[in-house]
Amino acid sequence: MLPRKIADSTVRRLAIYLRFLEEFEHQGAETLSSKALADRAGTTSAQVRKDLSFFGSFGKRGLGYDVHALTAQLREILGLGRRYRVIVVGAGRLAGALAQYAGFGARGFDIVAVLDHDPAKIGHRWGKLVIGDVAQLEKIVVAERIEIAILVTPAEPAQGLVDRLVAAGITAILNFAPVQLHVPHDVDVKNVNLAVELETLSYALQHHAMRKRA
Amino acid sequence: MLPRKIADSTVRRLAIYLRFLEEFEHQGAETLSSKALADRAGTTSAQVRKDLSFFGSFGKRGLGYDVHALTAQLREILGLGRRYRVIVVGAGRLAGALAQYAGFGARGFDIVAVLDHDPAKIGHRWGKLVIGDVAQLEKIVVAERIEIAILVTPAEPAQGLVDRLVAAGITAILNFAPVQLHVPHDVDVKNVNLAVELETLSYALQHHAMRKRA
Repeated sequence: MLPRKIADSTVRRLAIYLRFLEEFEHQGAETLSSKALADRAGTTSAQVRKDLSFFGSFGKRGLGYDVHALTAQLREILGLGRRYRVIVVGAGRLAGALAQYAGFGARGFDIVAVLDHDPAKIGHRWGKLVIGDVAQLEKIVVAERIEIAILVTPAEPAQGLVDRLVAAGITAILNFAPVQLHVPHDVDVKNVNLAVELETLSYALQHHAMRKRA
Repeated sequence: MLPRKIADSTVRRLAIYLRFLEEFEHQGAETLSSKALADRAGTTSAQVRKDLSFFGSFGKRGLGYDVHALTAQLREILGLGRRYRVIVVGAGRLAGALAQYAGFGARGFDIVAVLDHDPAKIGHRWGKLVIGDVAQLEKIVVAERIEIAILVTPAEPAQGLVDRLVAAGITAILNFAPVQLHVPHDVDVKNVNLAVELETLSYALQHHAMRKRA
């Protein structure tokens, strides 16, 4: 039984814990303390215990977590017990890197279609994929039983494409377009803005410089 | 005067507010309510007011925020009043997309060097950049006055490269390698894990499916 609403930041940490648990499992560890997991994930053991407590009781005081059981339960919580069919909309350089990124397939996300509007790109082959025509978006989403869309376009066409994806039944979108998308409340959008990540670093650099001067 | 420690999530939201403020400014808006900013950024007006309150008082009750003043102050807070010199370590497909991503230059981040260890890649041209030899990492960091490193390598070599970057004086690292890096406390690392982003969506899909069944 899942709780109704868990913060994105918690879900993201659970996905990160899972990575390290899988590493520990691979190394043959049977139990793990919240401290060890926190150290690997760059957080505190209190945070680890709090995040896991949302989903029930996983650990025994003094014994730590059962690595195998916790790994299995986190995979279940994150919906990783099965594979997902993914479409990439936009076929620029970043889309090309994403479409051929082995890390997605390894985690259960199969990119089965890539679309663009540029006749110079349509028909080109990217590994096993052939770039399709975005005019066929609705047909392809249905025919390929797509569940997740990765949007990698400039800002301008993004909202129109998302409206079409949502109308075709997509409820999960990873957005790289530098624009806030408007979607119905039952559609999930995660925004990745790589310049924002650099800006958290420029903030940190400036902050350090000011502390040094102080 | 900056406070000592602001959560990453707050800094990230400030960077997002800045984007929308710049849009509003570009459209000629002079004042803006916390509600309007919150709607654009996908958060609540209470969150907007809380985030901005860390840095002083920007708004007037009933009048909203002065768009021009708030934009200038957020740019200052985020350290965007100047340009940053950035190195990309690793020259795979994702690195290529990042190195040539126009959005970084537009925000003040100039990628001035790309390095790899693969002799088949060294010497190749990516736009204005020529891929250099990672053996020269320390020399290039100093000669090019690099402040920020973007690490785009597999997991295995990542920690060794980060140790070398830190020894060469780098204190700000954007990490795409799927591994938790260990750095001294005065070095900032931001991790981007694109598979984790997809896993927040598989969580959401599974969560929706369970609610529908309930």
